[in-house]
Amino acid sequence: MKNDLLHTPEGVRDIYNGECARKTVLENRLRDVCALYGYNDIQTPTFEFFDVFNKERGSVPSNQMFKLFDRYGNTLVLRPDMTPAIARAAAKYFSEHVLPLKLCYAGNTFINNHKAYQGRLKENTMIGAELIGDSSVDADFEIISMVIDCMKNAGLHEFQVEVGNVRFFRGLLAQAGISGDDEEMLVSLIQNKNYFGVEELLDSLKIDRHIADVLLELPQLFGSVDVLDKARRLTDCADSLAAVDRLYELYELLKVTGSDRYITFDLGTLSKHTYYTGIVFHAYTFGTGEPVAQGGRYDRLIGQFGREKASIGFSVTVDRLMAAIGRQGIDIPLDVRGTLLVYPQNMLNKAVAAADRMRKTDVPVCMIASRPEKTKEQYLEYAANAQLEQAVFMQENTDAVTVLSARTGKERQMSLEDLLGGDHA
Amino acid sequence: MKNDLLHTPEGVRDIYNGECARKTVLENRLRDVCALYGYNDIQTPTFEFFDVFNKERGSVPSNQMFKLFDRYGNTLVLRPDMTPAIARAAAKYFSEHVLPLKLCYAGNTFINNHKAYQGRLKENTMIGAELIGDSSVDADFEIISMVIDCMKNAGLHEFQVEVGNVRFFRGLLAQAGISGDDEEMLVSLIQNKNYFGVEELLDSLKIDRHIADVLLELPQLFGSVDVLDKARRLTDCADSLAAVDRLYELYELLKVTGSDRYITFDLGTLSKHTYYTGIVFHAYTFGTGEPVAQGGRYDRLIGQFGREKASIGFSVTVDRLMAAIGRQGIDIPLDVRGTLLVYPQNMLNKAVAAADRMRKTDVPVCMIASRPEKTKEQYLEYAANAQLEQAVFMQENTDAVTVLSARTGKERQMSLEDLLGGDHA
Repeated sequence: MKNDLLHTPEGVRDIYNGECARKTVLENRLRDVCALYGYNDIQTPTFEFFDVFNKERGSVPSNQMFKLFDRYGNTLVLRPDMTPAIARAAAKYFSEHVLPLKLCYAGNTFINNHKAYQGRLKENTMIGAELIGDSSVDADFEIISMVIDCMKNAGLHEFQVEVGNVRFFRGLLAQAGISGDDEEMLVSLIQNKNYFGVEELLDSLKIDRHIADVLLELPQLFGSVDVLDKARRLTDCADSLAAVDRLYELYELLKVTGSDRYITFDLGTLSKHTYYTGIVFHAYTFGTGEPVAQGGRYDRLIGQFGREKASIGFSVTVDRLMAAIGRQGIDIPLDVRGTLLVYPQNMLNKAVAAADRMRKTDVPVCMIASRPEKTKEQYLEYAANAQLEQAVFMQENTDAVTVLSARTGKERQMSLEDLLGGDHA
Repeated sequence: MKNDLLHTPEGVRDIYNGECARKTVLENRLRDVCALYGYNDIQTPTFEFFDVFNKERGSVPSNQMFKLFDRYGNTLVLRPDMTPAIARAAAKYFSEHVLPLKLCYAGNTFINNHKAYQGRLKENTMIGAELIGDSSVDADFEIISMVIDCMKNAGLHEFQVEVGNVRFFRGLLAQAGISGDDEEMLVSLIQNKNYFGVEELLDSLKIDRHIADVLLELPQLFGSVDVLDKARRLTDCADSLAAVDRLYELYELLKVTGSDRYITFDLGTLSKHTYYTGIVFHAYTFGTGEPVAQGGRYDRLIGQFGREKASIGFSVTVDRLMAAIGRQGIDIPLDVRGTLLVYPQNMLNKAVAAADRMRKTDVPVCMIASRPEKTKEQYLEYAANAQLEQAVFMQENTDAVTVLSARTGKERQMSLEDLLGGDHA
């Protein structure tokens, strides 16, 4: 019974010790990027009305959302995705805003993925940004640049941002006259990489051989900028060609800043979010098969909540990025500072006065009453676990203290006054 | 239809513009206090199994929790309260830990309060700390000191921490032989301040007149340290007297640091959390009738998940504290810095290079392509809303820029190179 109570539900977990401190450092590094690009924070509720995320909106499938009910019987969901929530808020508060709006957020999202992938979490911390009301390629470039800066600032040396454009695929579908259930089935087959199934479906639909060939070629339209040339030669569909042109324009901008080295093109990429209308992207690095960041252009989503605003955004899946960084052996150094102050029980007042002085100079002080059965080593281990750099032992009836470095174990004797005088660094 | 989509569910809300930035500043100030006391961060899941918070554990009533189901049909709840979750985690990961454990957290809790108090939120950000495995009055003192430091660091000048001890009331109940349903009814009557009801119940239970008198006197046992003397004279119950002694000891420690001026005693205080076993407290300030911080000692909770550990903790209700600070007209100054860089569409590359240089010196730069129909005033308003200190206008075919202060509107002309050379402060 007691042991049952210790469990957390499937797909969620506790984060503690150094891992939690490192996650906070990583979060701050990602938030710093958003702040440096002049984005302003917004917070939306953890749960919203189901309709904000339903199929019309194009977020995740309904059966992957955690649902609950309010007291009026309305269906609420834990937000599976931040973008529709920010879109709703943008429509609500900034509908009259005529200049591009730059919003960023840090918050948890919840996906009840029934296919229990190994280690795939149902609750994820997401940090991201939305650039609202800007249809230009400049906006695409800014968002992709932010993704790249996030990856670099997280400490990654090697990563790739795979960029596609859903207009390429949608153009082909329109040309072929595929829509509705057929489109959904085709997308599902492509996402599952079932190309025999794709071929069979295209045959059964009697799709023009030329268009079918391009659709079957999609998985090969992956790689360096050459694939854009290849894609251009494959089709005469105006929409698909415009999609390729947009990627070219973006590529030219990325080349100027040298960011093109992080870019791979993937014209076969299809996002699970159907609200995307233009470029879409996924950032990958070693240590996880899932993207550590993702996003895209959604020019038709905000219009569903009010006035149309062409927009693009990205989000970093912090827990996944953190896991990848760990598997790559990249260190996220913690700020090891502060003092474990071990005091004899009857010297609390003196210890509090000393701690108070140190804290006023911004030095963290963790106070612990000494216990006769504990060894210095045990206190040092405690200090190290708590990311404190030293342990200071006060002694009864004397002003002398023993200072031990948590890193080296080196021991010094000094007076308490000397310690407080600034020699505690 | 569209307008319906804009709503958020009852009791939850969006936080944006300066309010969100101020909330982040406030959160950091509270987290700083926890860090200065040497507490380490922990994160627990947003939802847990219902049993972690059920009646045995003593969190909020079941009908005030948001419930959902996992795919195995288990009942999950959005955490209504952090303490049982941290208690579970402490039992799970630190059961062998023999020195006091100091953990802190920032996270949202969810209470489906059916009595819809005006403006009472169902989702609240909580920042708090738990001192686990320390039964001493030193621990009580440390936690109360942290609450006081949190209030001060938040910018409050006037606040009171009302401190009680549930052992006082429970001692009287035990002496009177009141338990079970009678106890629940009595607590409910006292919490609703229905003293005619209390008197009637005590009469019907034929409670010893002497004990009944003390119970009826509870609401008067509120005020300065004198109430402790008064309480001592009222009862001969050993447990109740021990509870008063503990408050005295705590008071003596608080006097040494001058913190006694923030303390009021309230022996009639009863927490909604039945897991409290010793001192309990609520911090109040002007601008809200609800406590902005609360907590207490829970020596029997962690034992329900594993090995018993005497513990005490507190939490600050950030959104409520923020509202009170606002109503008191206390400013939470924002860091107004950075540049709105307005560039002609065809000068993107040059603008990006300039922004990149400024960002490398940690100056936020928000880039916007200039739109002919916009006035300088509109850009300045945009900069002010985004907490940027200046707007810089690049001009076509020249290196000259116009720099406008968002605060004063003062205009300067300079070369882009001079701006980047450090004169952008």
